[in-house]
Amino acid sequence: MREDGFERVLGGVCAPRGFLASGVSCGIKGGGKPDLALVYSRVPASATGVFTSNEVKSASLLVTAEKMSAGEASAILVNSGNANSMTGERGIEDAKKSASLVEKKLGLAPGSVLVASTGVIGEYLPMEKLEGGIDLAVEELSPGGNTDAAKAITTTDTYPKELAVELEINGRAVRIGSMAKGSGMIHPNMATMIVIITTDLALDADLMRGMLSQAVEWSFNRISVDGDQSSNDVVLMMANGSAFSKKPKISESDAEEFFKALCWLTGNLAMALVKDGEGASKLLRLVVNGASDDDQAVRVARAVANSNLVKCAFYGGLPAWGRIAMAAGNAGAGIQPEKMEIRLGDFEVASGGRPVEHDQKELARIMERGEVEITIDLGLGEGSAYFLTSDLTPEYVLLNSSKKS
Amino acid sequence: MREDGFERVLGGVCAPRGFLASGVSCGIKGGGKPDLALVYSRVPASATGVFTSNEVKSASLLVTAEKMSAGEASAILVNSGNANSMTGERGIEDAKKSASLVEKKLGLAPGSVLVASTGVIGEYLPMEKLEGGIDLAVEELSPGGNTDAAKAITTTDTYPKELAVELEINGRAVRIGSMAKGSGMIHPNMATMIVIITTDLALDADLMRGMLSQAVEWSFNRISVDGDQSSNDVVLMMANGSAFSKKPKISESDAEEFFKALCWLTGNLAMALVKDGEGASKLLRLVVNGASDDDQAVRVARAVANSNLVKCAFYGGLPAWGRIAMAAGNAGAGIQPEKMEIRLGDFEVASGGRPVEHDQKELARIMERGEVEITIDLGLGEGSAYFLTSDLTPEYVLLNSSKKS
Repeated sequence: MREDGFERVLGGVCAPRGFLASGVSCGIKGGGKPDLALVYSRVPASATGVFTSNEVKSASLLVTAEKMSAGEASAILVNSGNANSMTGERGIEDAKKSASLVEKKLGLAPGSVLVASTGVIGEYLPMEKLEGGIDLAVEELSPGGNTDAAKAITTTDTYPKELAVELEINGRAVRIGSMAKGSGMIHPNMATMIVIITTDLALDADLMRGMLSQAVEWSFNRISVDGDQSSNDVVLMMANGSAFSKKPKISESDAEEFFKALCWLTGNLAMALVKDGEGASKLLRLVVNGASDDDQAVRVARAVANSNLVKCAFYGGLPAWGRIAMAAGNAGAGIQPEKMEIRLGDFEVASGGRPVEHDQKELARIMERGEVEITIDLGLGEGSAYFLTSDLTPEYVLLNSSKKS
Repeated sequence: MREDGFERVLGGVCAPRGFLASGVSCGIKGGGKPDLALVYSRVPASATGVFTSNEVKSASLLVTAEKMSAGEASAILVNSGNANSMTGERGIEDAKKSASLVEKKLGLAPGSVLVASTGVIGEYLPMEKLEGGIDLAVEELSPGGNTDAAKAITTTDTYPKELAVELEINGRAVRIGSMAKGSGMIHPNMATMIVIITTDLALDADLMRGMLSQAVEWSFNRISVDGDQSSNDVVLMMANGSAFSKKPKISESDAEEFFKALCWLTGNLAMALVKDGEGASKLLRLVVNGASDDDQAVRVARAVANSNLVKCAFYGGLPAWGRIAMAAGNAGAGIQPEKMEIRLGDFEVASGGRPVEHDQKELARIMERGEVEITIDLGLGEGSAYFLTSDLTPEYVLLNSSKKS
């Protein structure tokens, strides 16, 4: 698939040169399910990450954040089935030990392995199982291990999520690879998002941090399945420079092209996460225009995206734009209802704080679609925001109450 | 029933002397369902109200808020089936006309009738039907009309909610009466809470406003069914002084007794609203202790009460305390997980940011109960808060998507 200035390629996190990956089963989940993923760069890579803003943070992430200060890493170990969260000092020790086992096994310098976890909260990592798993994961590392790795980090995702793109910089093909797990939960616990991004371009840690923060802001921070942010949410990125024999000078326009490709990748991963959100049957694309500024637009969009009443309406195919107005008013963002315009698909349903006559039969047809676009114009200025969310279904409740799994 | 210093009595909003009420069907809902309630005080009463903080406000409430500035009223007209919200200037005119029709019919001074609405958003009030309904409602006014009125304001409530208490002040029986409707929705729209409180004590508008604000803060602002606040939420209160032939001097301790009774009443109404919340199968009593201050406690409690993952867990009877910790961390209120303690019923499940061993079989029994108490001690100070919420059920989703009504 040809995109604007870049091309989609296969290979997930292993698409960029010099990255190996593996996904194995070490028994955390039981039943032989894969639950341990390793992504390894043959040469030390620049590394950066964006972490959950939840005040309760997984011990694994606390350890990774500390290691991250060096701005370099060679590998990322991710386990599923256990979040290593609310596990106190012992959780910290377990995370450090896991990283150190990988370092020893791969002959890496101390501090060069990052860790992340997803799964049940409030249980200690089964370190014996993990030790065996780490041995196996290192042995299984291969340039074709990307899908095994992507599978091993999933919880209730219905399929593994990988995406990679290729663009040309200084006459060389540069690649960005990725894998992601979405908001799934394992009995009896918790939704988590984990994203690993790899590239074979050499990037300064500062530049990479800036790019990744902005790409995350425009993608993973603009999606919502249930409004909860987990203790374990993290986006980690490694850049190993293997596309070039020596570090090239990156022009500003090349950096822009790279950033555009990165944003396409994170945007598409984000959409995949929402579409595969727990029990979701519909994708809602929410556009807020005419806000005083982008911040107001984001606040209004987030309030609408997180409203259970709005999400239930879309599940039922109800054109209940009044709920959208309500949710917007609940944001506390300083909107003026008499200036607000609301569109469902192509249909204007409210304007100037009043209902607008429209073809109800045509509108009903739009509401039945798998993807519905909601446009809110606040009539206040030039600010705008884009947000993705899903409907709220009985399936979501059943999944998250373990009445059905 | 004897409470501390006061007694529960029958009569709802008509329990206090000098109040009449009626509830009639005027055809907004159709099918002969009651949809118009009138509460009338034989003598002009002091009046105050607490209004929704949603930036989208019902035209009826905008009109009432303006009238309220006089601090006096003789009657309150409430219609269900139509929210008169997102109806622009025409909605304002309709609300004013409704009030004025009641004033004329009852021979009252202009500005002495308040109005409130609940129901579908974005549709204009059917004024012709309303006119007929107002005539009927005035004719039907009676000292025994309280339950008819309580029925007429309901939407998806499964029963009408009324409560009245009696206490002694200066040797006279003083009464407080009330009716409430909870978070229900009418196809295709919106949850709303409306509460009307009456008393035959004479109260200065300022004192009454202060008491009501605090009572609302401790009751209706501490409950959550789905986290949405409607454009139509309102608590209105009238005090007509009919318990005494002339306005008595109220001692500070009498005022305190009255306030205590008022809080008991609003607290119990709030609990009734949560219990009868859409699709709710369980009541969750949430206590947050040990916060830096009460504000932090409220923020943490609200975040936990509004978490879909927490609410789904309780529906399923899952002791998923990790979700409670997550939700608390999501409040952004400055908690320190390593100081947090969580109890489900009598069972400590987490302490010092770590899991605590407990009898899982006994805990499972607690989780099956219709009412579960969650206690979170933040270990930071003396602040505390109490919050009520319900579980999230497939029934809620079905109700609000009109897949089932």
